[in-house]
Amino acid sequence: MDIKDFFQISAGKWFSHRTSHDLASNQSESGKSDLNIELLEKTDPVVVQICQQHQVQPDLAVCGLRVSWEGYMQRDPSKLKGSTVLVPIADIAQVGAGQLLRKSNSDKKIANTGRYELGTDEALTLITEDESLYAEERIWFASPNLRLRTSVVKHLDGFSLASFSSEIRLGVTQLAANASAAS
Amino acid sequence: MDIKDFFQISAGKWFSHRTSHDLASNQSESGKSDLNIELLEKTDPVVVQICQQHQVQPDLAVCGLRVSWEGYMQRDPSKLKGSTVLVPIADIAQVGAGQLLRKSNSDKKIANTGRYELGTDEALTLITEDESLYAEERIWFASPNLRLRTSVVKHLDGFSLASFSSEIRLGVTQLAANASAAS
Repeated sequence: MDIKDFFQISAGKWFSHRTSHDLASNQSESGKSDLNIELLEKTDPVVVQICQQHQVQPDLAVCGLRVSWEGYMQRDPSKLKGSTVLVPIADIAQVGAGQLLRKSNSDKKIANTGRYELGTDEALTLITEDESLYAEERIWFASPNLRLRTSVVKHLDGFSLASFSSEIRLGVTQLAANASAAS
Repeated sequence: MDIKDFFQISAGKWFSHRTSHDLASNQSESGKSDLNIELLEKTDPVVVQICQQHQVQPDLAVCGLRVSWEGYMQRDPSKLKGSTVLVPIADIAQVGAGQLLRKSNSDKKIANTGRYELGTDEALTLITEDESLYAEERIWFASPNLRLRTSVVKHLDGFSLASFSSEIRLGVTQLAANASAAS
């Protein structure tokens, strides 16, 4: 499996249930959202534009991934909405790893470039880092319709937040809901 | 890093913050516990006894790991307490993987043998399976003092539960608490 395969099986509509653990206060907070994940070809104008913004040759891009979400966190009833496009640029020297370009319309705190690595256990690790913030995200499939995602965020003074999302492919829950309603 | 190295760096006292997502109802529940993790040599009588119970030559054991916990879940104020001993038996043919023997004094639902695999990303995957239940646990270190753990449980009719634990080495939180109290 390469990064494009991983993105391909991620494409679709998902229901995401997220919990964050604040590592200093040991408090947790939950949120729920709908995700729409779309694979973009390397020739997609958005992918080409992101490459150009980072002064990377567009034909070095493997593909693109657009992730859009709409949801809310438990303690804040206002809707959260946003989208991000990721563009992996494969390393020549290291199989399954490379640079990750990113363009977000919502989260300005996350750096615009990072690294990705697909492990032998088929877990994808994404790392973004700048002077003040380090974020590491790990994503894998428990089954084709259940995707798990964790992230840790470290500020200058140490790790501050650990989050977990369980993501269910929406067609599956809808089918289950219909079956349950019909029975 | 091999399985014994992984167990070695896991040894110590940890504070664990756990959240479970019920995948059918989309409800979550949190719990907190103190963990005590102890590395056992392969010559430890408990390790030898577990090998004998599984009709495995004790000198094939890599080592043992005793995990004891004491805590509670949010919706149930009664204390949860238990311990498990894990004994890895390395595969000859596959590096970083093998059979996992297990003896628990609390959870009778989990099978007594399983598989382990240490990925190139230094995440340890533990799989236990019997006729009615499949459980997959993944454990890794975000830093020497922050360990993350996820698990998914699948019954005959599909995945039912996804859990996430963030675990902080207790010395660290105590130091932080002392520093905070002193300031």
